[in-house]
Amino acid sequence: MRLIFYILDLIGVAVFAASGTLAAMASHLDLLGVMVLAAMTAIGGGTVRDLLLNRHPVFWIEDPKPLLVIVGSALFTILWVQVLPIPTDALLIADALGLALFAMSGAKVAEAQGCRALIVILMGTLTGVGGGLVRDILSAKVPLILRKDIYATAAIAGILLYILLKKAGMPPRWAFGAGLVSIVVVRLLAIQLGLRLPSF
Amino acid sequence: MRLIFYILDLIGVAVFAASGTLAAMASHLDLLGVMVLAAMTAIGGGTVRDLLLNRHPVFWIEDPKPLLVIVGSALFTILWVQVLPIPTDALLIADALGLALFAMSGAKVAEAQGCRALIVILMGTLTGVGGGLVRDILSAKVPLILRKDIYATAAIAGILLYILLKKAGMPPRWAFGAGLVSIVVVRLLAIQLGLRLPSF
Amino acid sequence: MRLIFYILDLIGVAVFAASGTLAAMASHLDLLGVMVLAAMTAIGGGTVRDLLLNRHPVFWIEDPKPLLVIVGSALFTILWVQVLPIPTDALLIADALGLALFAMSGAKVAEAQGCRALIVILMGTLTGVGGGLVRDILSAKVPLILRKDIYATAAIAGILLYILLKKAGMPPRWAFGAGLVSIVVVRLLAIQLGLRLPSF
Repeated sequence: MRLIFYILDLIGVAVFAASGTLAAMASHLDLLGVMVLAAMTAIGGGTVRDLLLNRHPVFWIEDPKPLLVIVGSALFTILWVQVLPIPTDALLIADALGLALFAMSGAKVAEAQGCRALIVILMGTLTGVGGGLVRDILSAKVPLILRKDIYATAAIAGILLYILLKKAGMPPRWAFGAGLVSIVVVRLLAIQLGLRLPSF
Repeated sequence: MRLIFYILDLIGVAVFAASGTLAAMASHLDLLGVMVLAAMTAIGGGTVRDLLLNRHPVFWIEDPKPLLVIVGSALFTILWVQVLPIPTDALLIADALGLALFAMSGAKVAEAQGCRALIVILMGTLTGVGGGLVRDILSAKVPLILRKDIYATAAIAGILLYILLKKAGMPPRWAFGAGLVSIVVVRLLAIQLGLRLPSF
Repeated sequence: MRLIFYILDLIGVAVFAASGTLAAMASHLDLLGVMVLAAMTAIGGGTVRDLLLNRHPVFWIEDPKPLLVIVGSALFTILWVQVLPIPTDALLIADALGLALFAMSGAKVAEAQGCRALIVILMGTLTGVGGGLVRDILSAKVPLILRKDIYATAAIAGILLYILLKKAGMPPRWAFGAGLVSIVVVRLLAIQLGLRLPSF
């Protein structure tokens, strides 16, 4: 079970690294800039979470496997783009999965540190969306997720569901799965139906 | 006395959250983006201060009341803007008060950690102006306070006054009050008279 | 020996502060904005490194001499620009030296914390280039070092050389010197020959 989550987490890293790579190529960065942006997108949220929660060593200092996954994913993405069209739909689905995995595992980390529910929700959401924030800041854009789409909102909803189901007596594992699935579903429904929060 | 400061601090949080909300609405963020920017503006400076000083748990993880104040203040600001004009003058005065409160309480935190005077001034100033910096970075602007106005300068002057008065033998509480008042006065005078630092 | 490194490190601080000052003047910041940008450029990378490695107190909180060097360097640069042309070539060479010193000393810090090779390279590179990243983010630009030039690449190459030479049995001091020199040489050659990484 733990192994499954570990692998799912690395898949999340790979997906976010690919999204960072595509953003970097759109900004005409060089090879190293692409790597930096890929890494920031993939591990930025979790890094800030670990610093805020005083969890040391930071997760990728303790186990640098995510860093290797990032390099591999960025190179693969660069090569892919040379010869094949970008599979936008597949990426959106993979990104929704990555968001769900990062948000829920971030929430579990905060729970393990004994944080109260509000902080658990915040830390989970931060882990899920923080990397994308950093990516957009480094590309000198107003971060996308602050401007449109149900994105962080999906993370918040899923973590909240997880906390409520657990409080209602559901075994933690099931509640975790329900939270995970609900984030993916909310996110994909929002894309499909063009749902948005009110904006100003 | 302590209770008064606690309440004043929460008022500072509310004011800065309102200013973040207005900035977010000017950038056409959605509801969640508004909340994020309001929160960053209100607690960004203090969060960086706590990380730099290795003060854990970070203040809003220990006591999440500021987070509730932020949500309330952002919602109130959004509703206000729908029906009433933005009270620019009142906001400027409230912002000067917030700056003074955050800067002085940030300085006290650094003092309590045993920092020397130079670091106390830096940490106080950072606490006062850091949130506004983050807000402008997230809106992809050159931060306003780096470009014009006596703003951080007012914070520096007030904290310096506080340190000097204490060294001269004034009771800490009075010196604190003098620092607080001087920041508000310098800031409001600078606005009124259009004072600026030399710029390039 | 240790004194020589300490002095070289302060020279690195001065050079990076000067480069931050020039960037700030190009963005028409005011006097305080110039100081902030100078300081961020000079100590930003090392600060993030210390936070990530949980090294407290952060280096400039423990010994604030770098802060005084920054103020002096910024003032000197402002005055210089009033009367003399900017010595672009001298600055490029000084910047290459600063990059080399920061990268290698950042690598040593990570080594002293017992980090493995990959993290040592990352932390050294971050210390060398982090300040420039922060400077460009605060000026609302896509960071220069992500877009062109062999810059971070030179740091990576030098740290890697240092690690390999030490593993091959060279005395640490010599390996350190070799890494230092190679960063300067690679960086200056890259400028001279217009070398770049492939970009997209």
